[in-house]
Amino acid sequence: MNRAERAQMAMMLEVSAYPKPGNVDRCHDYADTRLEHFLASTILVRPVFDAAEGPGGRVGSLIREAVMRTNGHSGGNTHFGAFILLIPLVLGGDIEGAQRVVAGTDVEDAVEFYTAFGLTRVRVGESDDLDVNDPASIAAIRERGMTLADIMAYSADRDMVAREWTNGFRLTRRCADLLHAHGRGREAIAGAFLDLLATEPDTFIMKKHGAAVAERTMRCAAEVRRGGRDIRSFDAECIEGGINPGSVADITIAGIYVALGEGWQWDS
Amino acid sequence: MNRAERAQMAMMLEVSAYPKPGNVDRCHDYADTRLEHFLASTILVRPVFDAAEGPGGRVGSLIREAVMRTNGHSGGNTHFGAFILLIPLVLGGDIEGAQRVVAGTDVEDAVEFYTAFGLTRVRVGESDDLDVNDPASIAAIRERGMTLADIMAYSADRDMVAREWTNGFRLTRRCADLLHAHGRGREAIAGAFLDLLATEPDTFIMKKHGAAVAERTMRCAAEVRRGGRDIRSFDAECIEGGINPGSVADITIAGIYVALGEGWQWDS
Repeated sequence: MNRAERAQMAMMLEVSAYPKPGNVDRCHDYADTRLEHFLASTILVRPVFDAAEGPGGRVGSLIREAVMRTNGHSGGNTHFGAFILLIPLVLGGDIEGAQRVVAGTDVEDAVEFYTAFGLTRVRVGESDDLDVNDPASIAAIRERGMTLADIMAYSADRDMVAREWTNGFRLTRRCADLLHAHGRGREAIAGAFLDLLATEPDTFIMKKHGAAVAERTMRCAAEVRRGGRDIRSFDAECIEGGINPGSVADITIAGIYVALGEGWQWDS
Repeated sequence: MNRAERAQMAMMLEVSAYPKPGNVDRCHDYADTRLEHFLASTILVRPVFDAAEGPGGRVGSLIREAVMRTNGHSGGNTHFGAFILLIPLVLGGDIEGAQRVVAGTDVEDAVEFYTAFGLTRVRVGESDDLDVNDPASIAAIRERGMTLADIMAYSADRDMVAREWTNGFRLTRRCADLLHAHGRGREAIAGAFLDLLATEPDTFIMKKHGAAVAERTMRCAAEVRRGGRDIRSFDAECIEGGINPGSVADITIAGIYVALGEGWQWDS
């Protein structure tokens, strides 16, 4: 399996694993975003991962191209956060390589990234003064000489995906370790997902529903993990409330990619 | 969407659609063959479809390569029948083009195909005197000067996938027409699948369980279609008995590929 295939397999395995409280999985859809939307993105992004594996690819333009190729269906952008993690990982091979990619980003990467951001329907926190729909933001990025790594650092306190860029892919690493610890196959993915959810407030939930809901979700996941609560009722409650831990899912995808590269077996 | 992507989308959409009585779908696995095995094959076959879309590809060696690339996991070969239909369709573009591909096959295509066949765990009818595990068969093919189209004609009376090669992809065409008639999205796929199952005895079931079981399955599907029986109990009964209409699934994949090329919308 080459890097591009590993990245696609990670996307496919994450969405196929279940139960994953609150998220689309093979047992649950949201009305507008369904299993096949996630799988379509997994298929259609391939040429971008191929380009990332080849020579000369730039992280900003590759993220933009990934969003453009997967933005055509009614499910909206399903994998923006995952691409932010996977593309440096495919470019660099592993976490160490991805950190070199992050360190090497420039202003053009930042500008390309903002163009991609404008193409998605990803929720932007109200405190952002770099408005992605505002062409002046791009001018501001150039003026301040911000690299893509700077942009991520700027968002890191309120976005756990961006934070991965600033702290050496800490949760990605932890997710890969959890997968190794849980053993082979999809049960390990569901287990690692729940472990992360039980210990980190999901910043996607935070932006959508506020910090209190993100923290309550984390505490509920911890209760499920301790055996004090049924996972299926927790899942149903999350789905009902539209509480989907999208950032933990993104990190899980990155963790699967890393674990696959370290010999973790998806095929239980 | 290029041809290769359309073929992958067809494979992904078929396995994601539900309920599909007796087959793996997003709600059902078999113990050894699970949703993620089908989706892994969908991802890993990509370079073969890319080669089929480019110049100079030969149908026999492409089928062999597709089997080799997707044979590595414990789920066994999930898509051998689908590749027999998709590869001429991708090579030729549409049904008309696929018929030209079929007409142009030669003895080397037949030899390559037999090598692929030997790599799969696909059930071979006991009446086959061309034993795929017997190197003498390949010698026999060369001696008799059989093309791959001849091989398919030889199997056509007991294999509905091979039969597609001999009759202008008749059921593939019908499946595409059914998809157009049913409308957009995955409900149309489940509908077209049931329509085919209700009118054709599945030859995969026939080889595994005998003609009587294949015909009974067809009659049950017709009863479900008339509203005389619940699809979920029929599905459960098929799964319980290991009665999986794998050939109808292969033809459904080919039908989705054709329909997508004619503008059918997967994204309801």
